[in-house]
Amino acid sequence: MIRRGSIDEFELIRRYFARRQVKTPGVRLGIGDDAAVLRMPPGRDLVVSTDCMVEGTHFPVGTPAHSLGYRALAVNLSDLAAMGARPLWATLVLSLPKAEPRWLQDFARGFFSLARRAPIALVGGDTVRGPLAITVTVHGAVARQAFVSRSGAAPDDAIYVTGFPGDAVGGRMLLGRGRSRALSSAARSYLVRRFHYPTPRLVQGAALVGVASAMIDVSDGLDEDVRKLLSAAKVGGLLDIAALPVSPALLRAFGVARAREFALTGGDDYELAFTVPPRNEARLRRIAARWPCPVTRIGVVAADRDRIWRLEGRLFSVPPKTFRHF
Amino acid sequence: MIRRGSIDEFELIRRYFARRQVKTPGVRLGIGDDAAVLRMPPGRDLVVSTDCMVEGTHFPVGTPAHSLGYRALAVNLSDLAAMGARPLWATLVLSLPKAEPRWLQDFARGFFSLARRAPIALVGGDTVRGPLAITVTVHGAVARQAFVSRSGAAPDDAIYVTGFPGDAVGGRMLLGRGRSRALSSAARSYLVRRFHYPTPRLVQGAALVGVASAMIDVSDGLDEDVRKLLSAAKVGGLLDIAALPVSPALLRAFGVARAREFALTGGDDYELAFTVPPRNEARLRRIAARWPCPVTRIGVVAADRDRIWRLEGRLFSVPPKTFRHF
Repeated sequence: MIRRGSIDEFELIRRYFARRQVKTPGVRLGIGDDAAVLRMPPGRDLVVSTDCMVEGTHFPVGTPAHSLGYRALAVNLSDLAAMGARPLWATLVLSLPKAEPRWLQDFARGFFSLARRAPIALVGGDTVRGPLAITVTVHGAVARQAFVSRSGAAPDDAIYVTGFPGDAVGGRMLLGRGRSRALSSAARSYLVRRFHYPTPRLVQGAALVGVASAMIDVSDGLDEDVRKLLSAAKVGGLLDIAALPVSPALLRAFGVARAREFALTGGDDYELAFTVPPRNEARLRRIAARWPCPVTRIGVVAADRDRIWRLEGRLFSVPPKTFRHF
Repeated sequence: MIRRGSIDEFELIRRYFARRQVKTPGVRLGIGDDAAVLRMPPGRDLVVSTDCMVEGTHFPVGTPAHSLGYRALAVNLSDLAAMGARPLWATLVLSLPKAEPRWLQDFARGFFSLARRAPIALVGGDTVRGPLAITVTVHGAVARQAFVSRSGAAPDDAIYVTGFPGDAVGGRMLLGRGRSRALSSAARSYLVRRFHYPTPRLVQGAALVGVASAMIDVSDGLDEDVRKLLSAAKVGGLLDIAALPVSPALLRAFGVARAREFALTGGDDYELAFTVPPRNEARLRRIAARWPCPVTRIGVVAADRDRIWRLEGRLFSVPPKTFRHF
């Protein structure tokens, strides 16, 4: 490991991270040696994803440390969910201008509040002096060759999305404003929480193995991520703007037109968008009946490569202009 | 994946990274989906390490991109070597203030020059806008339960080190100076290369499985890393400063006293320090006879927890004062 420039690395890791361990299978050697040693469960493939969040680029200066700890793990777990994988182990690289005990404690609490629920074990990492940035690498397992890729969509498959896309960007916009009398504090705090604490859809992703033909997590906005899903299979789709799931809080806060705009282009949702062959739709309905989040049919895959949005009888080859403000 | 703040991520990855692929076993799905899907070779444990290098902390502003690409991978491979693992797969997170084609091309060339030799496949990553920082996560394999930890040293084991520790810091110091008539340009460029292009001791690390009782890579300086190795086993050691391997170039450039000081405390070497039980020393000599780098016996493990350095008949409980200038 690189130690030069480390901030009392061992003490820091021991105090805030090594003590709070989460038990997951296969950890032969965790934090503290040159590397972690891990054993894969039999008959499984390893799924690996890594994402970095930089202050000023991916989150505003002053974002609460508790949310950052949670969110840095959540956005990575969302990638595992999108493959149908179950989480096992994570590493964390923390670049910090200085080591503030209070900040680190809050960050670790946020990180482990989600790590315990996932569950996922922290098995290694690095702490360095530098601008505030957080890189998490997650490892998960999926039955051999059972992973759900981005590229399996076929014509006539239905297109679905979990949860209420648009809530996260709604919450982020409310952060910059004062409280308003028009919006209840419950609705406001619900939306802000959807930005600070997105829910990686791990249960849903794993349950969709063998059901979904293709899957992606919604990080850039539903329109952009559905575009990627369809392009990967060289197909198009017909999507219904009126069918977009919009939360009551988002509707109250922004009205129907902006709520739909946020749902289409907002990003930061970490919901799952996926396609389901007609023969699997009944099975999906049975599975999804047990989920705490909605799952909504928003369109259908088409053989030609255009992506068409339908609203009030009109068709658009890109979302209507009012829906492209971001 | 997080896309907000990405620098034309797909185009960039495709152009500089995805095209240069290195083949290693088990890659089911590489760059381009939400996550990579990988299959472990049978009967092996997974070894994972991650390290981050930040501009201004771990390398000076203006360090050549080719060296950075090489070095970011090398320091991580060195951690795999220290466990006795063979490399398989890597992810790369690149935080960049802007996307300069020339810089990226040089960086990728440096990275892949080592990736091809290791060999290790790049299977995923993230590119974000932010201050220059590079995080690499490496994955390797070692026979089940065969990994060499830091903590297995026992009294009477011999203490060894590969290569010429101190060369890297010697090279780094020469970087800040003009050329001198006293030093040949071959010696100068040898030392600077040892800083810019450290050699991860992968062959040596893997060959030491079943031979070494404990192992660590030398990143902070030989004295500090040997201290960690001995502390992890709650033992001490008697070490011989006169036995330290010092390269002819380092001797010529800095003289014997400073050369030894660099070897003891310099850091950035990425050599392996390890302990060998007496029954395995003959086997070590046979194996090491085929290595291109020297391997030197520098001391012996002792039961009491003091670490004693010997020089010219005198004993020091810490390295003599002249050897602690860093």
